[in-house]
Amino acid sequence: MKKDGPIGVIGGTGAQGFGLALRWAQAGETVIIGSREAERAQQAAEKIKKKLGAGTKVSGDANRAVCAACDLLVLTVPFEAHAALLKDLKPSIRPGAIVVDTTVPLAASVGGRATRTLAVWQGSAAEQTAELLSPEVFVVAAFENVGAKMLTGEGPVECDVIVCGDDQNAVKIVRHLAAQIPGVRALDGGPLENARVVEQITALLIGFSVRNKTHCGIRITGLPPSALVSR
Amino acid sequence: MKKDGPIGVIGGTGAQGFGLALRWAQAGETVIIGSREAERAQQAAEKIKKKLGAGTKVSGDANRAVCAACDLLVLTVPFEAHAALLKDLKPSIRPGAIVVDTTVPLAASVGGRATRTLAVWQGSAAEQTAELLSPEVFVVAAFENVGAKMLTGEGPVECDVIVCGDDQNAVKIVRHLAAQIPGVRALDGGPLENARVVEQITALLIGFSVRNKTHCGIRITGLPPSALVSR
Repeated sequence: MKKDGPIGVIGGTGAQGFGLALRWAQAGETVIIGSREAERAQQAAEKIKKKLGAGTKVSGDANRAVCAACDLLVLTVPFEAHAALLKDLKPSIRPGAIVVDTTVPLAASVGGRATRTLAVWQGSAAEQTAELLSPEVFVVAAFENVGAKMLTGEGPVECDVIVCGDDQNAVKIVRHLAAQIPGVRALDGGPLENARVVEQITALLIGFSVRNKTHCGIRITGLPPSALVSR
Repeated sequence: MKKDGPIGVIGGTGAQGFGLALRWAQAGETVIIGSREAERAQQAAEKIKKKLGAGTKVSGDANRAVCAACDLLVLTVPFEAHAALLKDLKPSIRPGAIVVDTTVPLAASVGGRATRTLAVWQGSAAEQTAELLSPEVFVVAAFENVGAKMLTGEGPVECDVIVCGDDQNAVKIVRHLAAQIPGVRALDGGPLENARVVEQITALLIGFSVRNKTHCGIRITGLPPSALVSR
């Protein structure tokens, strides 16, 4: 399992994926934005280069090509596209790859409210991902609670990233990835099944954001310094 | 609906109820601790008086008598005792009373883990409470995420209290009640159904606390000052 290769952001032309790609490019990581159409992904990469400078290590390609090129993939697609896309991409994902799922099964996916979630049979979107992909892939849930507006803004991200996964090494790598984003504290959230709770927190945060016309995040209090990773 | 009467803490001899009673007594509120046996409740009240001074306005009585005496009740019983107790107390609860449910349906209630929750048919323990009690009672969910150790400690409570309810006036009263506890920010968490998420956050926090051998809480970030109530 590599940790120095490129980060592939599947669905990275969407608001949250674009925000994550921007932050990682800013931190000096090599990022490949994925989209259904390679051209749209390349346009998003150009937009980041325009913002951060021509030397920024960001490119764009079709989702399948991104899967074939990366040992670290970040899934940023809406829940309604989630399962079908994974089935489509499965043959292209490398054995041993880490797949970071940021998906939240908001009821808005089926025309309901963004302040409610759908019940996913496997327990969470992330556990659905783990079921759909090969057992040779390491699924980690993270970034569900970090809104796109926080990521595309200029300041530090006032939100903890709760990283859940069943493979300790994969969780560690994703925590270091999250800690690249200024303001983020990348926390060990326990096993992948805990994504059930973390995903739902997003619906609660959307409610807080709507009621207060702002963009809300979450912090866990009372943690010792040993619970945090540095950049 | 009164807000100046006594606060009845049902199950207040347990750790969380005792901690809440202690904090409210400390803030100058009149508190009646309830227990199955009046004597045990009176002993808990004496313990608080011993700590805070003989003039502290705290007493103890049987749960039913506490219900009959208070327009503001706080339910602090473990989930395994929750439904049966509510059926028992229902005839004693005053019409128009506010019932604050702090219950979390932890899997530990049926011998499982405290880091997992049970699925409650109504969606949450608080919604179960609303179904079990008279429609003339205002059910509000709050204090699920505040651990007993935080409450019985000396310092401020480093945790937001997310208050969920369908009656705006009842929510407002409970937010003011929560804001009496130093360190607590009492937030409007939206409708009662949102207790589904807030209750589950407790299981996640227990996981954080266990992994880090500490007592964790939660804060919502990005809120404007208008989202907060003062004491």
